[in-house]
Parts: sequence; C-alpha cells; structure tokens
Amino acid sequence: MDISNINPKPVYREERFRTPMNAERDIGLWVDRIGQNKCRSEIPRLRVLGQYAAVYIDEGEGTFTSPVTGRIPLHPCRAILLFPEIPTAYYPKTEWQTRWIVWNGPDAFTLERLGYLRQDSPIIHDSLQAVSQAHKRLESLMTQEDLAAVLERKNIVLELVRRLFLMSRGKQQTGVLNEQMEEAVEFLRRSFNKEFSIEDLAHRFACSATHFRRTFHAYTGRSPREFITSLRISQAKELLMQGKSIKQTAQLVGYQDVLYFLRVFKKTTGFSPKRFVHAAHLH
Amino acid sequence: MDISNINPKPVYREERFRTPMNAERDIGLWVDRIGQNKCRSEIPRLRVLGQYAAVYIDEGEGTFTSPVTGRIPLHPCRAILLFPEIPTAYYPKTEWQTRWIVWNGPDAFTLERLGYLRQDSPIIHDSLQAVSQAHKRLESLMTQEDLAAVLERKNIVLELVRRLFLMSRGKQQTGVLNEQMEEAVEFLRRSFNKEFSIEDLAHRFACSATHFRRTFHAYTGRSPREFITSLRISQAKELLMQGKSIKQTAQLVGYQDVLYFLRVFKKTTGFSPKRFVHAAHLH
Repeated sequence: MDISNINPKPVYREERFRTPMNAERDIGLWVDRIGQNKCRSEIPRLRVLGQYAAVYIDEGEGTFTSPVTGRIPLHPCRAILLFPEIPTAYYPKTEWQTRWIVWNGPDAFTLERLGYLRQDSPIIHDSLQAVSQAHKRLESLMTQEDLAAVLERKNIVLELVRRLFLMSRGKQQTGVLNEQMEEAVEFLRRSFNKEFSIEDLAHRFACSATHFRRTFHAYTGRSPREFITSLRISQAKELLMQGKSIKQTAQLVGYQDVLYFLRVFKKTTGFSPKRFVHAAHLH
Repeated sequence: MDISNINPKPVYREERFRTPMNAERDIGLWVDRIGQNKCRSEIPRLRVLGQYAAVYIDEGEGTFTSPVTGRIPLHPCRAILLFPEIPTAYYPKTEWQTRWIVWNGPDAFTLERLGYLRQDSPIIHDSLQAVSQAHKRLESLMTQEDLAAVLERKNIVLELVRRLFLMSRGKQQTGVLNEQMEEAVEFLRRSFNKEFSIEDLAHRFACSATHFRRTFHAYTGRSPREFITSLRISQAKELLMQGKSIKQTAQLVGYQDVLYFLRVFKKTTGFSPKRFVHAAHLH
C-alpha cells in the first residue's frame, strides 16, 4: 500500500511527534507534536484533525475556511486555532511559512467547554510572542522523557491557551462589555454584604437582567448570585480565622439568618465554621 | 458560640481566601488562599488540613512532624508540603516568619498520584524562588475574577509543583539513579528499533530487571517496553508523513510483522496509518 503523494510537497518541513502513554495521558493534556514548514499553494481540502492545534503564520497570505465561520482571509502574524471535530481548510495564496503546536487530552476539551477556546473565533491577532515562546520552549522539551518534562509541556500549553484567550477577548466586540463587567465585579466587591437585586444591578449598566446574567457568566464563569455567595463566604473565612463569632460573622457578610449562613458555609466549603477554623489554621 | 482563641495570637498575620465555584472548580485545580505571618511558639497540635499547601519559612527554626515522616527539624529557606489527609504539626522553636499557598481540586490529587508530590518527602530545600514567585504573582491575582485569572492561578500552582518536584528530586539519594535513567533513555532513543531484552538493558546498569523497571517507571512514568513502543510509533508517524509506505515504516521502526505494527499503531494513536496521514497533515 502506497500512501505517499497524499499531501503536497513542501519547500521545507520539520515536524516532531510524540506518542503519549500512561503518566503523560493521566496528566490530562499532552503535546502531540510541533512543526514548521514553508509550502506552496495546494488544493484546499477540508480535514478533521481530531486534536487541538495552533498554527501561526510567520510569512505569507492565505485563506481559512470552516462550516462554523465561512471563509476568512489570513494575514501574517495571525494564529489559527483548529478544533478536533471541525472540518477545516487553510492554505496559502502562493507560498507561506508557518509553525504549529498540536495538543490533546481531556483537559483540552474542558478548556474549550469553559470558553477559553471558541470555535467561532479561530483567528487570533498579535499572537507572535505567545506562539513563538511556546514553540521555542517545546522544541527543546519534545525529546525529554522524565516526569518533570511531562508537566512542563502541559504547563506551556495551558499558558499558551491563556494568552490566546486574552488576545482573542481583547479583539472581540465584547471589549466594552469587559470593561462593564470589571466595573460590575468591583461594585459587587464593595456591596456584597448588602441587599440588592440583580435587576437593580442590570439597571446600572442599562441592560436587562437576562443580558446582564449572561455577560457576567461569560466573563467570570459564575452567575452574579454565585459570585456574591463566593465573596461572602471568602470574607466569612477571614473573619472566622480572626476569631469573630459565627453570629457576628454571618451578619457582617450579609446573612441575617445564622442557620442559613451555616447551611451555605457548609455547602460551599464542605466544613462547618467550627471545623473550618480547627482545620484551616496555618502559621 | 464563641470560636475565638482556638488559634494562637500571631505577631502579624495576613491571609486572603477564595471560595471557588463553577468554572473555577471545573478547571480542576484552584487556589484556596495565600497568607503570611510572623508568630510565636505554640503548643504543637496535629491537624488535617484537607487541602494541599506549601508553607515557606522565611525566618526562624522549628519542627515538623507527621505519622509518615516522624519529627524533622526545620530551617529557614525550607518549604513544607502539607497533604490533604495527613495529620501534621509544624511549629517554631521560638518565633518564625512564613508564607503559604493552599490549593485543592481533582488535578491536585492526580499530581500526587503521578509522583509530583510525595508524602515521604514533605520538606523541600532551596525553594525560595519557586515559592516567592508563585506567592507574589498570586497576591495580585487573588481578587481577580475573570476567566483568564482562573486559568492563570491554576498555571501558577502547576508551575510551582513542577519546580518543587525538580528540587525535591535533585536532593534525594536518587540523584545517581536519575543520571542512570537519563543514560537509559538516551540508549533507548538510539536503539529503539533494534531487538533487545530489558534484562540486557538492566545488565548494562548493573541491576536486576525488576529494579530497572521500577526505577525507569518512577523517572519517566512508563515501563521500558511502553517507552520503546512510544518511540517507535512517534518515529513511524514522521516516516508516514514523509511519504514512506506502511511496510517500509514498520521495518524501519523495528516491527518485522506489518500486521502487528498496524495493530500497535491503531491502539496507541486511535487511527490507522492511512487515516492518520489523511487527517494529520498540517502546513
């Protein structure tokens, strides 16, 4: 069986694969390979990679297309995100030079589910530093086989994802919304122990409660109500550690009903306040 | 109910708690709190923290004790690792100054299971830079509530664990063994496509096959046999991508039996060679 000539002949090409087993799989996220090439125009063909990848265009123009986004023109210094199940084609107008990092594992899917990687925003601007640094650090690590290298490769990809997420968020039309959400977080941080409704809060930002809740959740990963509970219980932990009584603490963080406070504290921390103070002391 | 006076009064104390919810829990590892204090000698008391912690001694001498390790004297510039279920006591001779980072989540337990954190080596030398940097970066991040901060906090802890692991490994009597294992990895990298037994290999390092397997697994997270398979399949991927036939590839990486190669390739990558080449091409 001859399977050569399926792919176009590149001008040059360098690629290094890994085949993760055991510890590298158990850690939840691994680098499958890194590579780079310079190649000429080819016939566009939709492919399903089955893994996550970031492809960075060092030089050249081209086109990206997928059923989720349609056709998007590509310019140098853009990174393309590829998703495991999305048929994608991308190709140079005449010739280009690219680098890529491919990763996989259950944690990679979790990152997508939590909104760090978005199928509808696969093109990321100004990502040279993030991709270059990750690519360079991985180059020397790809052939290292000890447990420290396994964790380091994972950390490099997580940091790459975080930086691509920050850059992609900065460029979206949500820029203004992000500022509003920072304001909302600051407001809640000052007022978490007072009584107010989400409707009042939404009104401050001239939007509906539904819209406010959705935007807040996309920004923080929590509903406004959950966020308030989180602030209240965090503050309660500090007060309890300082020696305040349960009753005092409950009132200071905004719970008039001590029994309700006890229930919420237990549910979010797994401990009663008394057991918490006994167990949690560090010095 | 008054729960003050359970803990000794510190000279000074600063601690900041978080209460993770939703996205922060779903991401698998979160920072519960960071803190620092200067405190006087107290009555030693075994506690079960229920979380992971690194406590760094900036100044002062003291004692650490747990059922796993017995009593260990503590000196400045040491970090102490605390494990969720291990009753532990640690305390200054007269007075000391410490900083701590507390984390939790399923990924934290995975890191322990994979050998990155070891209950029998809870004291880590020369860890100033690792703990200081993590503590400092977390200080400004503890009150940030957006999704990027959630991922950054996780990444900081993963990087801290990796650095503590490297330092703790360097100090163990396994130092010589690590060098031997690096040598073994290098040997396998050169000889992965040849036929040899693990017994021959163990003989080179003047130890029994059982001992060799155990040490190799602790160092790489894989058995020697799995490691060889991983190298063979990684090399096979590169050869297939270069256009080599399946038969040529199988022989070049050390499989005389093409059907057996096909089976191993499918099992470790999830794809047949043909589908792999179709799907995997990046450019």
